[in-house]
Amino acid sequence: MSAHSSAADEFNALPPHVWPRHARREEDGVVTIAGVPLPDIAAEFGTPVLVVDEDDFRSRCRDMVQAFGGDQNVHYAAKAFMTTHLVTWVEEEGLNLDVASHGELDVALRADFPPARITAHGNNKSDDFLRRCVSSGVGHVVLDSNQELERLNRIAGELSAVQDVLVRVKPGIEAHTHEFIATSHEDQKFGFSLASGSAYEAAVRCVESENLKLVGLHCHVGSQVFDAEGFSLAAERVLTLYERLIQELDLDTEEFNLLDLGGGYGIAYTNDDRPLDVPKVAHALRAKVQEHAQELGIDPPMMAIEPGRAIAGPSTVTMYTVGTVKDVHYEDRKTRRYISIDGGISDNIRPALYGAEYDARLVNRFTDSDVTLSRLVGSHCEAGDILVHNAYYPSDIEPGDLITLAATGAYCWSMSSRYNMMGRPAIVAVRGGQARLLVRRETVDDFLALEV
Amino acid sequence: MSAHSSAADEFNALPPHVWPRHARREEDGVVTIAGVPLPDIAAEFGTPVLVVDEDDFRSRCRDMVQAFGGDQNVHYAAKAFMTTHLVTWVEEEGLNLDVASHGELDVALRADFPPARITAHGNNKSDDFLRRCVSSGVGHVVLDSNQELERLNRIAGELSAVQDVLVRVKPGIEAHTHEFIATSHEDQKFGFSLASGSAYEAAVRCVESENLKLVGLHCHVGSQVFDAEGFSLAAERVLTLYERLIQELDLDTEEFNLLDLGGGYGIAYTNDDRPLDVPKVAHALRAKVQEHAQELGIDPPMMAIEPGRAIAGPSTVTMYTVGTVKDVHYEDRKTRRYISIDGGISDNIRPALYGAEYDARLVNRFTDSDVTLSRLVGSHCEAGDILVHNAYYPSDIEPGDLITLAATGAYCWSMSSRYNMMGRPAIVAVRGGQARLLVRRETVDDFLALEV
Repeated sequence: MSAHSSAADEFNALPPHVWPRHARREEDGVVTIAGVPLPDIAAEFGTPVLVVDEDDFRSRCRDMVQAFGGDQNVHYAAKAFMTTHLVTWVEEEGLNLDVASHGELDVALRADFPPARITAHGNNKSDDFLRRCVSSGVGHVVLDSNQELERLNRIAGELSAVQDVLVRVKPGIEAHTHEFIATSHEDQKFGFSLASGSAYEAAVRCVESENLKLVGLHCHVGSQVFDAEGFSLAAERVLTLYERLIQELDLDTEEFNLLDLGGGYGIAYTNDDRPLDVPKVAHALRAKVQEHAQELGIDPPMMAIEPGRAIAGPSTVTMYTVGTVKDVHYEDRKTRRYISIDGGISDNIRPALYGAEYDARLVNRFTDSDVTLSRLVGSHCEAGDILVHNAYYPSDIEPGDLITLAATGAYCWSMSSRYNMMGRPAIVAVRGGQARLLVRRETVDDFLALEV
Repeated sequence: MSAHSSAADEFNALPPHVWPRHARREEDGVVTIAGVPLPDIAAEFGTPVLVVDEDDFRSRCRDMVQAFGGDQNVHYAAKAFMTTHLVTWVEEEGLNLDVASHGELDVALRADFPPARITAHGNNKSDDFLRRCVSSGVGHVVLDSNQELERLNRIAGELSAVQDVLVRVKPGIEAHTHEFIATSHEDQKFGFSLASGSAYEAAVRCVESENLKLVGLHCHVGSQVFDAEGFSLAAERVLTLYERLIQELDLDTEEFNLLDLGGGYGIAYTNDDRPLDVPKVAHALRAKVQEHAQELGIDPPMMAIEPGRAIAGPSTVTMYTVGTVKDVHYEDRKTRRYISIDGGISDNIRPALYGAEYDARLVNRFTDSDVTLSRLVGSHCEAGDILVHNAYYPSDIEPGDLITLAATGAYCWSMSSRYNMMGRPAIVAVRGGQARLLVRRETVDDFLALEV
């Protein structure tokens, strides 16, 4: 049936805006990334396994730099996906690095990332974390509360240092995205309110603090944002505060000159998603900042952004082996096929946590089968362990087939657990036809090593 | 104001149906568990830290045994909370053990749990897992699909063994609980449908399989269930299938004599919750099985149950240190206080994943303060990192205070992640005035040990 062939053809395709840049389906039906056949990776390293297209990751670093006009303007958000290797790639591409915890700072420093190019985030930085920031020479600390401001000033004083800081501002803009990952409205834990004046007051307090140097303002409108308007409006609002501070506090714009607009650039998880057009957004943002600065009669500040997902997300795929296939009846006379793979919510909590959707493909062969309403589920002892709720998959998928989800680079490994004592997947990088193990698979020995 | 004192008094209390059995607030205002002051544990082991009341855990094991009439009837579900120590306690109390993955089986065997008392679950057991079950002499394997049935028969044959099995039946009952953790309706991944006849057919296939011995039937109506009616109805339905199999296949009830009714016994997470009355449910279930067996003219089978949460959940608390306190405006003129603690969704994903609620208390001191609408949030770089969405907490909570969440024994540590490179908490057991470290805190060295 032509309808079937067409469905199969569609399933054999790899949507280029979702899959890594060097992924392709070869003539024998096998999917390769950077020339490495995925079934070879499964055979050598086992499944589930994350495969990172290193040149994809690096090229997205460079695209961001080009769009935003300089590598110092782009900070990779380590929380999205962090190993010392990835930190090294970010360093080699010249980007700055954002860390959101003491642990992330430690990993960055262990990877020899230059501290001066690190910005430290977090709503609840401990004294130890702040002390480490100052003592290691972290470039910027983004201040999130008055208590933290006082603490950092004291700690920097104890270390006879002056720490460069940004004040995190809540511009009061609600980006159109999933509730859980919206971060710019007022009723959330991060930052100082613009509307209430507390952001202004915090900036004043920084200027008055002997061991802090206010170098700029920070804001973040949300995550997985597809609407450029939110970034633009936030930039305008924060720039207005920036100008007010310059005027009222007589600040030196040689030192106070940074507008950090955060991250949140949406990527495509499925064929239907259209990723944010980054060069277009960058152009619009820069124009907006220029224009609004001109209106305010000031020099435009430097602009920084903090992509994590937009760099790491599309670079990586997760490959699984099919274990069981079972047809289940639901409602009257309807059948849904449950395809179980050898991973699940332990290596990808996003569908359960955020309702996230993913593009899944067979990667070990072509299919010319018709399709069946299917649900892709994991191996956990939990009914909610679902990776793809409803999709039409080829009816010939069977145990032993390799199914791969695209765009799993961001917030999959970084949020992964050991639920059901299933070890975290290995991470393999591919480049120029070569596969390289970055992180080995966790084992029961690793779990038991923590026991006393 | 008396209203304030009353709110404070309420906050000083520890609801006994939520907190561990040996938790109490001492005269100096400090909370102890099994005689060990929680602030001492914070000082020695740091925070966040899980504190297990060992005698609480053990006593709940014994309560279950007493309610269900024998230790062989009660299987502790390891997935809820598993370390080799906890497995040893379960063994010492005489209970059986349920494992849901190869990893859980490995940990159980490493703890020298007797294999004959282990039951193996899972919707997607690998060949390796099944082989390990047979070769180690696991008591029961619960079959979940036809593919698995064939696989296990083949593997048992290769090992010249006959494996005792149960068939997992979907009785078609929807327990009233949160959607994510309902597991007994038809449209889910586990088991064989009763209504469609596939459970019957699977049982027939077991009987016909040379290397499998059908010893009983299994079902599971859901998780965190408060309505005993679901268990009872499931028991009745599965018993009807049991009787039919005996009659039609002429089965020997010396061998085919087990009805495993799974877990799902709801516990109290907050003061408003009323935990399931386990002795009452046990009595009703046993009566129902007796009565229905009599109606069917058969001897009642042995009954097994699989509590995990009901044993582990209330035994354990998670203690955090307050880092920052910040008032945030929302809507017009309303204020919400954000209290940040030094953990979050990495050590307890349940509020974000299931909308779970928790009882939080100050444990280092009394309070006589009035109360403020508050939100308890974690330290992760994520707006959804919320442990308690809305609660009135004492207005005098400040950085350095110790806040503890009760009933965190089940599905907190077992689902914990390393998000933001925050190490998993330590686990400390308390008993008879002594604290003992069971699992040490994870560090960045542990993360980097996996790197190649």
